[in-house]
Amino acid sequence: MTAVIDLNCDMGESFGPYILGMDEDMLELVSSANVACGFHAGDPRVMERTVCRAAERGVGIGAHVGFPDLVGFGRRYLDARPEEIRTDVLYQIGALYAFCRAIGVELQHVKPHGALYNMATRDGRLAEAIVQAVASFDRELILLAPPASELARAAERAGLPVAYEGFADRNYNPDGTLVARHHPTALIHDPVAAARRVVRMVREGKVRSVDGEDIPLVVHSICFHGDHPAAVELARSVRRHLDEAGVRVRPLRELVNRGKDPQGGHRPGWPGGGA
Amino acid sequence: MTAVIDLNCDMGESFGPYILGMDEDMLELVSSANVACGFHAGDPRVMERTVCRAAERGVGIGAHVGFPDLVGFGRRYLDARPEEIRTDVLYQIGALYAFCRAIGVELQHVKPHGALYNMATRDGRLAEAIVQAVASFDRELILLAPPASELARAAERAGLPVAYEGFADRNYNPDGTLVARHHPTALIHDPVAAARRVVRMVREGKVRSVDGEDIPLVVHSICFHGDHPAAVELARSVRRHLDEAGVRVRPLRELVNRGKDPQGGHRPGWPGGGA
Amino acid sequence: MTAVIDLNCDMGESFGPYILGMDEDMLELVSSANVACGFHAGDPRVMERTVCRAAERGVGIGAHVGFPDLVGFGRRYLDARPEEIRTDVLYQIGALYAFCRAIGVELQHVKPHGALYNMATRDGRLAEAIVQAVASFDRELILLAPPASELARAAERAGLPVAYEGFADRNYNPDGTLVARHHPTALIHDPVAAARRVVRMVREGKVRSVDGEDIPLVVHSICFHGDHPAAVELARSVRRHLDEAGVRVRPLRELVNRGKDPQGGHRPGWPGGGA
Amino acid sequence: MTAVIDLNCDMGESFGPYILGMDEDMLELVSSANVACGFHAGDPRVMERTVCRAAERGVGIGAHVGFPDLVGFGRRYLDARPEEIRTDVLYQIGALYAFCRAIGVELQHVKPHGALYNMATRDGRLAEAIVQAVASFDRELILLAPPASELARAAERAGLPVAYEGFADRNYNPDGTLVARHHPTALIHDPVAAARRVVRMVREGKVRSVDGEDIPLVVHSICFHGDHPAAVELARSVRRHLDEAGVRVRPLRELVNRGKDPQGGHRPGWPGGGA
Repeated sequence: MTAVIDLNCDMGESFGPYILGMDEDMLELVSSANVACGFHAGDPRVMERTVCRAAERGVGIGAHVGFPDLVGFGRRYLDARPEEIRTDVLYQIGALYAFCRAIGVELQHVKPHGALYNMATRDGRLAEAIVQAVASFDRELILLAPPASELARAAERAGLPVAYEGFADRNYNPDGTLVARHHPTALIHDPVAAARRVVRMVREGKVRSVDGEDIPLVVHSICFHGDHPAAVELARSVRRHLDEAGVRVRPLRELVNRGKDPQGGHRPGWPGGGA
Repeated sequence: MTAVIDLNCDMGESFGPYILGMDEDMLELVSSANVACGFHAGDPRVMERTVCRAAERGVGIGAHVGFPDLVGFGRRYLDARPEEIRTDVLYQIGALYAFCRAIGVELQHVKPHGALYNMATRDGRLAEAIVQAVASFDRELILLAPPASELARAAERAGLPVAYEGFADRNYNPDGTLVARHHPTALIHDPVAAARRVVRMVREGKVRSVDGEDIPLVVHSICFHGDHPAAVELARSVRRHLDEAGVRVRPLRELVNRGKDPQGGHRPGWPGGGA
Repeated sequence: MTAVIDLNCDMGESFGPYILGMDEDMLELVSSANVACGFHAGDPRVMERTVCRAAERGVGIGAHVGFPDLVGFGRRYLDARPEEIRTDVLYQIGALYAFCRAIGVELQHVKPHGALYNMATRDGRLAEAIVQAVASFDRELILLAPPASELARAAERAGLPVAYEGFADRNYNPDGTLVARHHPTALIHDPVAAARRVVRMVREGKVRSVDGEDIPLVVHSICFHGDHPAAVELARSVRRHLDEAGVRVRPLRELVNRGKDPQGGHRPGWPGGGA
Repeated sequence: MTAVIDLNCDMGESFGPYILGMDEDMLELVSSANVACGFHAGDPRVMERTVCRAAERGVGIGAHVGFPDLVGFGRRYLDARPEEIRTDVLYQIGALYAFCRAIGVELQHVKPHGALYNMATRDGRLAEAIVQAVASFDRELILLAPPASELARAAERAGLPVAYEGFADRNYNPDGTLVARHHPTALIHDPVAAARRVVRMVREGKVRSVDGEDIPLVVHSICFHGDHPAAVELARSVRRHLDEAGVRVRPLRELVNRGKDPQGGHRPGWPGGGA
């Protein structure tokens, strides 16, 4: 019996003359790529190149949809109406899909970026707007979301396939939410410790919370950022520990049940050892 | 025996708080809509609304792809490399396709806008870049182009379905090109005269050139602009004269052979009286 | 003894091919123009044209600074940091100033637009960021703000000249704040009633609140919008009633004390009947 | 008798999350900074930071004005009308001026960027549009231009102070123009050889052309780019050789006659040893 997990990373965040991210390094380590779609980062050349390189390595491709705020990198909350978010997301999905279709590779998933991700985690109306956009385009697209978030719940209500993501280098509260970034205990700085936490999430479905207790945490994917060398080192450490533990790293499309089972209906599939 | 023609019009050129174009009026008159994709005009809300309204009326939907120049409305030549044009066009096609797919309607055609259209008419390399973008997305998308242009030739070489477009209110040179806009004889001002020219193009495949001689002009579609009341009046006049002449107005997809004939290969289909 | 008031209106909100606002009509009626600076609306051509036309009529020119959100027209809250707001505002002031300087006319005032205005009314940190931008450029620029707002208070603390603005067609709560727009009693629909309220604000420094009681309301300027015919009609009505009541309409620079009095220090000057 | 020269470098080309250029290194080496104004690169935060750092080191500050084409970095020709260029340039000058004024430092010069620079070198109408923008803002702003270019001539006709710039690492044709970039002999790769050429330009007003003959070349400034380590090395080499040759490196404002001489009229001042 083999355990399996996806590793995802934000990519394609360069723009025009500007280079951002260590995409080449990360593409060797992860199994799914969240590709920026030109709103918060990325441009059509960067999108095409990123899609091609990911496809060459069998890395699953996702639309990393964000607010139309290049100068703010999509990290600033924007009080957009649900209709604005729905149509902006649909536009971005289509734009990235074009580059996938042009080379005959599947668009695998959608993941909101930055402030849009954070808002959709907590705000059911925005979560629903995103889910509507995804579902209207393709009901087999996987939505990548934090477990127990409004975003995950909205997708599940809509029967959309959902993948839960966890973080290797973030501490969790006892209720399964992340310790806020500004808190001194937010981050796990040691790449080895972080890697061991990931192995445990996959093997046991548990993580040690910031209070010292084990809590259940079942995720399909671990999220990395690729914007500085330490991030690459972290991903390398996690990947090595997963390999040593016999955990296979595979793209989301191989982990998530997309509603083709005979019981009918889309349901989130469960990854991990023996589900 | 019934003659048939398509009428096309630029649409969806509003943006955010800005309203442009008499889309509602024109949607009653034309059979194909060139929908701006957010680069030279349009935004995701406008795109969705335009796609929905066109679909409700059975109007064929096309991606009106342009330069990334909102303030210049895509009318200024930009010395972009073919790779930039190819990827910009592919991005825009995907973005508009998303709104079509979301409501289950076909994306019928692609038409370059403004300076991109003019450049692609004359410059084979840019024409090829556009054709590559279209063909890589969907080889059944119809490219709307001037007859005998570099754009039409590039599409034909690539086996892409092409539709030729003519103009009701523009004078033609003896070689079939348009009299330049700034020339005093460029425009036909009388809506009735313009309408009669269109009927003749359809019925006889001919137009009276600026020199007074008849020249052959076989087109699948007549292009209108929808940005001022006179344009609507012109379209109304053309539509009425076509109706009276027994010419049916149908979207491009019903006129253009998209390569499904047994002889194989994509070839431009011929519209008109008895093809 | 003559009473005096400024009338201000948002202007220069066209962009590229898009026309917005009835600027020509409003320029005949108001004494100060809030000119969009290219972030939420306006472009360099529109800015120059608006500055020139306002200057020709002796209308005072202000920088209407907004969020960098053209598609949202600056009406969507954006969670920008104070440093981002300060530098965005400074940039916009300089850009508009260039067009004033080029024709030798004074830049008279600054007024935040849309969501930035609303946020700065309530949020002291953002108000301070705006005030810092204005003060660092020119301590004689007048900040146009609602009375008793955080924005007015921040300007006063910084010794910046402030002008208070009121609304002809909005109802006031007993505490002097505006009745929220979505409330059924928010608007005064009758142009004559609205005009009479303005005359009373100027003559008596009072307005009838939504509860039926008179409250004090001393303002230097009345704000109009110029985006639909009813707004022009309202401004006409107000202007006519002011003329009939012998109230002079003059630009802010003639109403507001800009710290040149011998007592020293910038203090808001008081307009109205008996200053 | 001491010879003197200015060294100028493009700066402030970062944008939002994107870092570009080795500004800190170059600020130690040059005497004038061409600061991007948000159209082809730069944002208000980057502009302010760059202006402050340049001012701290006594480096002269210039507006590096470009086409509104961030994704193309202002390097793509855009067929803008002279009026569009004039107003875009005026807007950008004002925006950068705001950051200078806020800290009480002079805006010293204006230099077009990329495709705008190249076009204005050859096209008198565009050159004039730029000159009009500069002159309408401040007739003491120095325009930085290639010698014997349309841009320099337009400025001289208008009585605007002009500084001529040369290149350390570019070969010259016998007529004083630059060998085109794509030509194999375009570049001088050896930093020492390049530095010696600069010393000779300053000391002797001559440069060895690509044909092996000496040609006259009198410049006020040498242009560097700061976008890769080799550029910094080149600047270091030039600076060291200038120091060793006793040539002082000073900002443009100390080299260029800005029309304050009693003969009246603005005329380009001549730099160098004993003019």
